[in-house]
Amino acid sequence: MEKWEENVRRVTPYTPGEQPDFPDMVKLNTNENPYPPAPGVLWRMREMQYENLRLYPAPGADLLVNALADYYKMDPEQIFVGVGSDDVLAMAFLTFFNGKEPVLFPDITYSFYDVWAGLFRIPYECQPLLEDFTIRKEDYYKPNGGVVFPNPNAPTGVEMPLADIEDILQHNRDSVVIVDEAYIDFGGISARKLVEKYDNLLVVQTFSKSRSMAGLRIGYAFGCKKIIKYLQDAKYSFNSYTMNRPSLELGAEALKDEAYFRQTVEKIIATRERTKKRLAELGFTFADSKSNFIFVTHPDFSARELFEALKKEHIYVRYFAKPRIDNYLRITIGTDEQMDVLLAFLEKYRKER
Amino acid sequence: MEKWEENVRRVTPYTPGEQPDFPDMVKLNTNENPYPPAPGVLWRMREMQYENLRLYPAPGADLLVNALADYYKMDPEQIFVGVGSDDVLAMAFLTFFNGKEPVLFPDITYSFYDVWAGLFRIPYECQPLLEDFTIRKEDYYKPNGGVVFPNPNAPTGVEMPLADIEDILQHNRDSVVIVDEAYIDFGGISARKLVEKYDNLLVVQTFSKSRSMAGLRIGYAFGCKKIIKYLQDAKYSFNSYTMNRPSLELGAEALKDEAYFRQTVEKIIATRERTKKRLAELGFTFADSKSNFIFVTHPDFSARELFEALKKEHIYVRYFAKPRIDNYLRITIGTDEQMDVLLAFLEKYRKER
Repeated sequence: MEKWEENVRRVTPYTPGEQPDFPDMVKLNTNENPYPPAPGVLWRMREMQYENLRLYPAPGADLLVNALADYYKMDPEQIFVGVGSDDVLAMAFLTFFNGKEPVLFPDITYSFYDVWAGLFRIPYECQPLLEDFTIRKEDYYKPNGGVVFPNPNAPTGVEMPLADIEDILQHNRDSVVIVDEAYIDFGGISARKLVEKYDNLLVVQTFSKSRSMAGLRIGYAFGCKKIIKYLQDAKYSFNSYTMNRPSLELGAEALKDEAYFRQTVEKIIATRERTKKRLAELGFTFADSKSNFIFVTHPDFSARELFEALKKEHIYVRYFAKPRIDNYLRITIGTDEQMDVLLAFLEKYRKER
Repeated sequence: MEKWEENVRRVTPYTPGEQPDFPDMVKLNTNENPYPPAPGVLWRMREMQYENLRLYPAPGADLLVNALADYYKMDPEQIFVGVGSDDVLAMAFLTFFNGKEPVLFPDITYSFYDVWAGLFRIPYECQPLLEDFTIRKEDYYKPNGGVVFPNPNAPTGVEMPLADIEDILQHNRDSVVIVDEAYIDFGGISARKLVEKYDNLLVVQTFSKSRSMAGLRIGYAFGCKKIIKYLQDAKYSFNSYTMNRPSLELGAEALKDEAYFRQTVEKIIATRERTKKRLAELGFTFADSKSNFIFVTHPDFSARELFEALKKEHIYVRYFAKPRIDNYLRITIGTDEQMDVLLAFLEKYRKER
């Protein structure tokens, strides 16, 4: 090792899901939306200003922030945007989790939380989910340097009732509480309105799942003006211009077509409920999911073996080699046709055991 | 102040240049390119895949990294990409400047360096430029936690000879040296090839200036495979997918049209040289610039007053209210027509004094 390497920040990076690219693949491994973005996005893309690419975008991302403010009927100063919700969350960890007490989050949760804590040297303490994969709210009633959890939780899909979230907020007036709502649009109830009541609450959402725009990288957060200002200041200390012109224009456009949005989300929910029924018939068990994925286990199958068998057929799901969940698979909800391919394989797989 | 605010990271954010938007404005304040990106970018934009926006981009940004590798005849593993060179530099500060010794950079330089140092709590020590705005290389021959400077320097435009950069590298084998080449394509000589010889060198460039794509946010860095791997690991610990699909596709496309690139850069250089001559005739003095801006002062004018007078005419240049340079203006090189508007005003302004 060279001497200069002594000053390098050592990290254990997050491993994103595979991004295979086979024409025949059934890609149910990274919680992408199987339907394209709102059709208006296509027209907007075709009309996008080419000459303006030479100019910096507005550093405040005004076009997108104002569109979000209109859509959610909030003040633009209550909204922060970033390069996907990962960028928003990373910036929030950096900004708000600077205390000596540990930050609290579930043991089974989005696997980026401990990575950010590692990167920024933030002390943390995982709170175990109950056996049924629900969060025990009382675990978050102790002194801490911050609280963060997804709702619905990932990769379990389990939703926490809004009243429980408010209980956690009631018991945490002295540290920032982040509710990561990446999957909230698939049937969950958002904590967004609570930002009017709790100045230490940050609610994070994304265009990647319900709005079918993972490829554009747009995340956003709601909070009181003060908490958003802190986040903006940190962002302006990192990179003035994070959102490029296509993100701003296409993101704002996507918010205009509410009918398409509703329709897409409802299709995915219908497919999810149908898939749950079929999976149960095949002997799989799973907590009730309010997201665009189902987290399943089977008494007779090894999750890892099934994962490999599916992969051979170019059916991609997500497997986490982690304590407590190493016999589970996270299956993204695709189109009905994609789920039928998966279910047909599972049926065959079960018979051949 | 609420108790939760005690854990907030306090920062002094960077202030980006104004982004006014008047139809008649002459915008010479943020070093944007006055010419549009390569025409191929327009065609690629019109043909961009709409359906694929629902899918995450490749986390390794392969399309763009491979295009850069081909263009510069380097190995893809020697290249890192980010959301503008600010993102690349922020990530590099976070990754490489974790020592106890101060990081060294010039007192007059890109004003984001001390902001990143502040954000990440990195100790630093500014080394004063000589009176003629050149960097004294010997100032960087002492123990340090890292070295960073732009070449050509900003906002002075002064280039450091490659031999001097190599001298700095020779005296700094134990810490990372970052050469920030945002403006290198306007006549400077890149240190890029030195990455083969010095494993602690990182050379940063951008699509924002010479490639007319500030609105897309694309920056990149060259280094040995080891240093790039460290940077990748930190990036994967922050945000897996930073480069969105339009950036990847349009960035890769822009590299294809070498003739257009050369032509654009040469036009800007010609305009710069012509502008230098005229400014000198008007009594302005300035160090010789190898960038797409000129950093000027005038014995008879207050820079701040001139800045305000220009602004009233919707002619925007950049003024920094900072020690040693508070009687200077940084003027971006626009089209010949834009420079003529500026020069005509300056002529009138001088007569009216």
